[in-house]
Amino acid sequence: MSRGDHDADRRRLLRAGAIAGVGAGIGAGAGVLGAGAVRTREDALGRTAAGSAADAEAAPTALIGEETIPFHGTHQAGIATPAPAHAVFLGLDLRPETDRDAVLRMLRVLTDDAARLTAGTAPLADTEPELAAAPARLTVTVGFGPGLLQRAGREAPAWLAPLPAFAIDALRPELGDGDLMLQVGAEDPLALAHAARMLLKGLRGAATVRWRQQGFRRAHGTVRPGTTMRNLFGQVDGTANPQPGTPAFDRAVWIPEGPFAGGTSLVLRRIRMDVDTWDELDRTGREEAMGRRLADGAPLTGGGEHDAPDFAARTENGFPVIAEFSHVRRARGVDAADGGQVIFRRAYNYDVAPDPGGAEISESGLIFASYQADPRAQFLPIQERLAELDLLNQWTTPIGSAVFAIPPGAAEGEMLGQSVLE
Amino acid sequence: MSRGDHDADRRRLLRAGAIAGVGAGIGAGAGVLGAGAVRTREDALGRTAAGSAADAEAAPTALIGEETIPFHGTHQAGIATPAPAHAVFLGLDLRPETDRDAVLRMLRVLTDDAARLTAGTAPLADTEPELAAAPARLTVTVGFGPGLLQRAGREAPAWLAPLPAFAIDALRPELGDGDLMLQVGAEDPLALAHAARMLLKGLRGAATVRWRQQGFRRAHGTVRPGTTMRNLFGQVDGTANPQPGTPAFDRAVWIPEGPFAGGTSLVLRRIRMDVDTWDELDRTGREEAMGRRLADGAPLTGGGEHDAPDFAARTENGFPVIAEFSHVRRARGVDAADGGQVIFRRAYNYDVAPDPGGAEISESGLIFASYQADPRAQFLPIQERLAELDLLNQWTTPIGSAVFAIPPGAAEGEMLGQSVLE
Repeated sequence: MSRGDHDADRRRLLRAGAIAGVGAGIGAGAGVLGAGAVRTREDALGRTAAGSAADAEAAPTALIGEETIPFHGTHQAGIATPAPAHAVFLGLDLRPETDRDAVLRMLRVLTDDAARLTAGTAPLADTEPELAAAPARLTVTVGFGPGLLQRAGREAPAWLAPLPAFAIDALRPELGDGDLMLQVGAEDPLALAHAARMLLKGLRGAATVRWRQQGFRRAHGTVRPGTTMRNLFGQVDGTANPQPGTPAFDRAVWIPEGPFAGGTSLVLRRIRMDVDTWDELDRTGREEAMGRRLADGAPLTGGGEHDAPDFAARTENGFPVIAEFSHVRRARGVDAADGGQVIFRRAYNYDVAPDPGGAEISESGLIFASYQADPRAQFLPIQERLAELDLLNQWTTPIGSAVFAIPPGAAEGEMLGQSVLE
Repeated sequence: MSRGDHDADRRRLLRAGAIAGVGAGIGAGAGVLGAGAVRTREDALGRTAAGSAADAEAAPTALIGEETIPFHGTHQAGIATPAPAHAVFLGLDLRPETDRDAVLRMLRVLTDDAARLTAGTAPLADTEPELAAAPARLTVTVGFGPGLLQRAGREAPAWLAPLPAFAIDALRPELGDGDLMLQVGAEDPLALAHAARMLLKGLRGAATVRWRQQGFRRAHGTVRPGTTMRNLFGQVDGTANPQPGTPAFDRAVWIPEGPFAGGTSLVLRRIRMDVDTWDELDRTGREEAMGRRLADGAPLTGGGEHDAPDFAARTENGFPVIAEFSHVRRARGVDAADGGQVIFRRAYNYDVAPDPGGAEISESGLIFASYQADPRAQFLPIQERLAELDLLNQWTTPIGSAVFAIPPGAAEGEMLGQSVLE
């Protein structure tokens, strides 16, 4: 790696740090920073973000475990903030007896527990406080299903409903829907497990767990910061995402007005990937199905990963270089100034034990989490195009589906969902 | 943290690096080193282990993903080498038609695949080579059940059999036993998922998956290197372990003679932990059940985590400070020069979705992996004492159990298990 690459990485890191700060609605001074220029709780006073050789000498044990992502802000954390290695998505059903008052009580406890845990402080009822001490960039993001809003006597946004059925779907009800959603993310799996348990413990008087989906990306420090994730097909996954901190991101993701202003929507799809039959396809076939090169994620029309595909390019024989049936062509949104068909995806791989007695050696796939201001205008047209024609459909099957409304972030002293429910 | 602590940490790191080299039967020059003094594949020539400010400046992007642990050596990797954040244990049954020749063919493929994957090189049949490129300290450890030795026409060691039944057990056959065991560990969950799949792909003509157990410890960089792990009860777990690289470790773990010389045995127990009822116990009750302080793992008779418990100490009222029923007193082995009742544990936490419809909010526990030269002389007496009386039994239930013989490591060009099977 050349010196120039190092400098570019460092600039990208600093930008990511500033972006995280803006995204969470706070000054860059408290933002989360990349590896090598970390800001720990013990060290949050005078250091500059860039660091220096002297800093590196003085703090050889800077730990990802001590890093925090601010909980309070204009937007909830866990969306514009960098995706950590581990995430668990929890879908809950409210108990029959949980009325509006109980919903509000539950959310106040949830807000308080989440604020403490993400700061590395044990919640009031935590009997294992030592497990809360290293939050490792923990984030907690809360979403509402239509049932919660109804229970609280509030009208749900028109888009807050199950997606229409698609011919490609094989949905399992036990993997979808729900009244309340918690998305918990962290760089450390023990911090994640403890936080998820503490949050559920605080909720269990008011709600029961409907489903639980856990996924992973690369561990912190495995590849260079800013590297686009790979899924279990080996594909570079998420290249076309808008970048947090840009006007395109803000336009695509944040709801501009109404009670959910500053919030967003989450479409969560559990997509089973048939790795065994994918394995039977040769490399050229795989690249044509995707429309991108496997090695670096660049479009088949050339350039680098982040260069635009040239959908008009043709081979010598007159065929499109990027095939009509390819995923990249079918998925491509229109980045119009009015929001267009742009979504922000923050997906996680899953790989769990296959059903006993089956022939499969793995049960793998993608927890596809898509955030957008309006799922009907942004997510749905893309999904309709993909369901109609996308070569990848041959090896993928949506088996779970849910839509949630994500309220804006809470200021200190506020309850999550206050603008929506009060 | 004081400067003195930093220096102590650094010395511990260097010692751990040297130990890993010795443990794997190779020179310290190729050993795996701790964070902050890493040795990457690109950088394996002239650097010293200690590093310097200049090194730190020249290599700001040293990545855990690029670190490797040598596969070849006197002992298999994954036992004396530092336990990484993620591990999956796979139990396999040989297919009925798999005869001695097929067993040997399978092991030759397995040895080749494991050697390549752990070096960050894709196996020959790998159709997603990009997923093999960042091994992140990947290790593959292979164990034999009695069925494999029988199929290969070799006599099993007398201790290679299921443990006797204990009154505390509630074993599920689908979580135990098997003809072949793969233990795959890595700091990165994607590297782990890919390696496990590639290994199973190479095996599937000869064997089927019987069980799969995945677990975690702290992610790399979450806490300081050398910190003893915590389990999901919040307990410091594994303090009494012998330290790799010491004569006590070698005596306890490695089989001294016979076809398995340089190998060891693995007792794998899946221990469910009832976190909900544990939560109902107050902090004093928890510490008395364990015999150690929760905050730092020190024995209740004082000192630090690694100070010896004073089992003779009594309270003013004449009761033992460390109760008769406490786990630490019951588990304590006798470190005699002849091997004694010493085991080496390298456990992993698990936390999975509870059974649907149940009242639990989590299904948690410990994948207890214990290595010792002779399970009958070392593991069994401890287990018998614990089964007879250990207050922790109230909150823990063994639900899976298996014993495997771990053959010694392979030299380059050798097949794993060669000394046993040829």
